[in-house]
Amino acid sequence: MAKTMGRLFGVGTGPGDPELVTRKAWRVVSEADVVAYPAPDHGHSFSRQIMADAISEDAIELPIVIPMISGRAPAQAIYDDAADQILAHLKKGQDVAVLCEGDPLFYGSFMYLLARLRDDVAVEMIPGVSSLVASASAALRPLAARSDILTVLAAPLSDDKLEAAIHGAEAVAIIKLGRHLDRMQGLIRRLGLMDQAIYISHASLPHQKVMPLADAPDDAPYFSMILIYKGSDPWIN
Amino acid sequence: MAKTMGRLFGVGTGPGDPELVTRKAWRVVSEADVVAYPAPDHGHSFSRQIMADAISEDAIELPIVIPMISGRAPAQAIYDDAADQILAHLKKGQDVAVLCEGDPLFYGSFMYLLARLRDDVAVEMIPGVSSLVASASAALRPLAARSDILTVLAAPLSDDKLEAAIHGAEAVAIIKLGRHLDRMQGLIRRLGLMDQAIYISHASLPHQKVMPLADAPDDAPYFSMILIYKGSDPWIN
Repeated sequence: MAKTMGRLFGVGTGPGDPELVTRKAWRVVSEADVVAYPAPDHGHSFSRQIMADAISEDAIELPIVIPMISGRAPAQAIYDDAADQILAHLKKGQDVAVLCEGDPLFYGSFMYLLARLRDDVAVEMIPGVSSLVASASAALRPLAARSDILTVLAAPLSDDKLEAAIHGAEAVAIIKLGRHLDRMQGLIRRLGLMDQAIYISHASLPHQKVMPLADAPDDAPYFSMILIYKGSDPWIN
Repeated sequence: MAKTMGRLFGVGTGPGDPELVTRKAWRVVSEADVVAYPAPDHGHSFSRQIMADAISEDAIELPIVIPMISGRAPAQAIYDDAADQILAHLKKGQDVAVLCEGDPLFYGSFMYLLARLRDDVAVEMIPGVSSLVASASAALRPLAARSDILTVLAAPLSDDKLEAAIHGAEAVAIIKLGRHLDRMQGLIRRLGLMDQAIYISHASLPHQKVMPLADAPDDAPYFSMILIYKGSDPWIN
């Protein structure tokens, strides 16, 4: 008798605080036969850490190890392999939950698995609290209001591209800061927006940092963010 | 003896499915002495509906009734009054949770209360799953990847503003559709992006709708969204 295929879940784990996981994500992960997650080649998987208390002792764990420094080609081979392994579990009738920091489809790596598996299996997505909204909460100020244009930019983009996009928006988030912090500070200073720019790292975690961009520490992590809101508190009235 | 001030929470309830509420939001609302929420002058409060099973029987409920058709001035008077009522409860030492659909700071009305209260009381934000990421999950496709520029636009903006912003981005979300659906369809057709545009309404709810924008129903609700991703599946490789 052919086994019923297992179910595949793309699970957003939220920004870091295990209490900012949705009730659905918590339930699905606690019930999953297999729990997969991205992991660095050294150290802990952040998404696994967030969900540690939900994962069943009987669950099979499937770390997807992405070397920190890797070109596109080896990364693609790793996702090919991970997709094969996940498919093998699904064919055994096992449910697989893939953990994704923040939200799975907001600049996440889950899409690489989704692209490989969506034609063969039904995928259920469980959206999560994104770092974007978590950072606004940490900074205690609106991300965007009314008919504001909100634009999300990645710091590795060129100054020209960033500048044009910042000009066209009322509210801006610059993600993937890391080693680009210095250049971003220079750019935002040139645009005269330094007073409206906030730096946030590790939103929702005990070591969360929120401060004016001018005061940001030199060693900004990759998962830190700048939020810019133009105008002086236009949301009061 | 002076009472300790109660605590004020801005609580994101997520897009609609009560299981997409975070564990923290569920706990805080279940423990709150007072639960406030926006409500229409006719019918049910959506955020209260989402949290119905969490609200304690002993909780005081404080609906903030915003008439459907209202100018800015009456709305401001309503928020003034709501802020006063909330402050009175806090001064009695009662904890107050204010419910907000989606995320409280992503185009939400919580900012009007925050602006009125933040100087007098400590506010704790609980970010939520936004309609933005919930819609991408419903559509089963990435919101944005790698260094894509992601722009969120409100449908009431002028065609000129929308067109310029759409040109400058790889990924676009158009929110607050409602009666603007027709105009948005025309604009997106003119821009040659109809094949990449998806319509989503009521993401995460049983009556969720996901379809090509060309097929969207005439009566799009205010809380529906268009997602556009340029290029043909650029996220596969």
